[in-house]
Amino acid sequence: MKLSVTQENLSQALSAVSRVATNRSALPVLANVLLKTKKNRLLLVATNLEIAISQTVGAKVEQDGAITVPARLMHDYISSLPAGNISLEAEGSRLHIESGDYSSAVNGVSAEEFPSLPTIQEGQSFKLKALDFKKALQQTIFTASSEETRPILTGAFLHTFKNSLYLVATDSYRLAEKRLGQQKGDFSLVIPASALNDMLRIIGDGAGELSISYDEAQVRFNYDQTELITRQIDGEFPKYRQLIPKESDVSFSVDKEEFINITKVAALFARESAGSVNLETIEKEKAVSITAVASQVGENVSRASAKTKGSGKVSLNSRYLLEALNVIEGNNIKFRFGGKVSPCVLTSEEDSDYLHIIMPLKS
Amino acid sequence: MKLSVTQENLSQALSAVSRVATNRSALPVLANVLLKTKKNRLLLVATNLEIAISQTVGAKVEQDGAITVPARLMHDYISSLPAGNISLEAEGSRLHIESGDYSSAVNGVSAEEFPSLPTIQEGQSFKLKALDFKKALQQTIFTASSEETRPILTGAFLHTFKNSLYLVATDSYRLAEKRLGQQKGDFSLVIPASALNDMLRIIGDGAGELSISYDEAQVRFNYDQTELITRQIDGEFPKYRQLIPKESDVSFSVDKEEFINITKVAALFARESAGSVNLETIEKEKAVSITAVASQVGENVSRASAKTKGSGKVSLNSRYLLEALNVIEGNNIKFRFGGKVSPCVLTSEEDSDYLHIIMPLKS
Repeated sequence: MKLSVTQENLSQALSAVSRVATNRSALPVLANVLLKTKKNRLLLVATNLEIAISQTVGAKVEQDGAITVPARLMHDYISSLPAGNISLEAEGSRLHIESGDYSSAVNGVSAEEFPSLPTIQEGQSFKLKALDFKKALQQTIFTASSEETRPILTGAFLHTFKNSLYLVATDSYRLAEKRLGQQKGDFSLVIPASALNDMLRIIGDGAGELSISYDEAQVRFNYDQTELITRQIDGEFPKYRQLIPKESDVSFSVDKEEFINITKVAALFARESAGSVNLETIEKEKAVSITAVASQVGENVSRASAKTKGSGKVSLNSRYLLEALNVIEGNNIKFRFGGKVSPCVLTSEEDSDYLHIIMPLKS
Repeated sequence: MKLSVTQENLSQALSAVSRVATNRSALPVLANVLLKTKKNRLLLVATNLEIAISQTVGAKVEQDGAITVPARLMHDYISSLPAGNISLEAEGSRLHIESGDYSSAVNGVSAEEFPSLPTIQEGQSFKLKALDFKKALQQTIFTASSEETRPILTGAFLHTFKNSLYLVATDSYRLAEKRLGQQKGDFSLVIPASALNDMLRIIGDGAGELSISYDEAQVRFNYDQTELITRQIDGEFPKYRQLIPKESDVSFSVDKEEFINITKVAALFARESAGSVNLETIEKEKAVSITAVASQVGENVSRASAKTKGSGKVSLNSRYLLEALNVIEGNNIKFRFGGKVSPCVLTSEEDSDYLHIIMPLKS
């Protein structure tokens, strides 16, 4: 293998693919990135066996070939080099890298040891605006579970319902749902949240369209020159729609920034109770108040004026509340609940395709 | 105790003093900040018994008194409140805090349990420009040792020599010295680097003058409304001047940014050898090269053009080199060394009062 590429292109491609490489695997070659000539381009691939990310960059190929080199070192090294041409030449399992005043030979591993990549059987595909999908990811996937005890909850549920596309995640304590516009077809994909976090990084500040393809077992994302293939998570996503209360006994509307401020203050007093706070509507004062639950450091009450409907009190986790408020768009939040067991529902008129649910704490 | 203060003043004072409070002491009250009326002002004090920081703020005092409250909670709470007046009222060991829609009662500890503060015997004092002192701190104190095995090296050495004031720190592997202009008197103070880090934070982006007073055992810094008193470290600071070589066999001048770049790149290849790199002057090519020592990940050579004098090679820690280059001012670095045992000396014509020494590694 012998070729030259620009530092800018190679560095960008390594940023896109190399994060998925892992040195926590029993298979050492998974810490490496595969470099392989492909016609007049250079293909870069990294995989952790669950997710594979690949990208091609334009190259001036003098001699075809392939090699794998440590992904982290390669990424850090190439991104440290000055802009301009870089020549790459494989010699056995070593890769020589030359760029102006910088010269190096990186010890690699034969490309034959790199696992073969998953492919999509001819399946269905559809397109989305990249920035819409990015926004949906930012509003939902942080609510996916990080615990492997219920694998299905470590994924996000991309599915159609009544001719609309929805992205949903939940860890069973909270749930976020975003409607992504109209969508033909009928499908239900549960995609690892880690793969979707990689997609967030890949989309970055980019515009344009994203293409999503799927078969029985895999999902493929194509964006710009980058391709990500991930396995789907087996099993059935919880039937969450039946958990969303259509109506609630108590509701209030409040300015988002004020709601964030009073929640932050209450959270300070709730540190030793894992962030539990009590939220209460005070109808006669047209206000909502928030207090830390059973705080040993002291007592605290903070209020914000609110349009209230009904009087009630609910205990919930202040971190969950703050994380929801941080992603919901618009200046005015509608919060509704109904006693100690009915879920709390957060919505915003200015972000009408988004819904966030937090389960109350038993206090 | 009953008084009112502005949120802005109280928040700023808590930022200045509360970092020194500690909950890692056997004395729980040291996690608290002392609030005490003092004529028409409010005094705030925190201490870890080695360092005490205090500040007064303007207040409208209705009733004199004192109380201590948890420093971290108080700081976080007050800084979260909106601007405006805050009323504070002690009731037994509880402090009631009222501000608009926010109301709280913090559980505190009686002021009588707070340790009495160190005072300076009538001693000497002098003044410095705050920003000059801040710059000197930034350029030197990171080289102080963090290991308690040789306590004297955990301090910085503020002393006079030939009518000039110098600030010096060393961990025995590297040393930084800054001359702070002319200074009358004859003194040698070894000040805990942790106290000087607090001073860095206290000075912030401020201008104006700083006053330093000292007696046999303590040093006091007064800046704006803030006062920091610290014990001196007992013992004699190493006689470092005799270690600085007056001349070196080999030297080169190099552009600082290029030197930083080639060092960063070499450091990537030096990860498994704790950052050891070889620096070499190549006189006939008018260049300096840098390579990782005995790297298993591969080989690397990076070069920068340089004005060289003599040929030679030296091994040193790339992290130490990068940290020195990051604080030295000016665009052009002069680096001199002399074989494997003589210290490496870094200077800059544009920063002529600063000197940085790195001991070579035995390779």
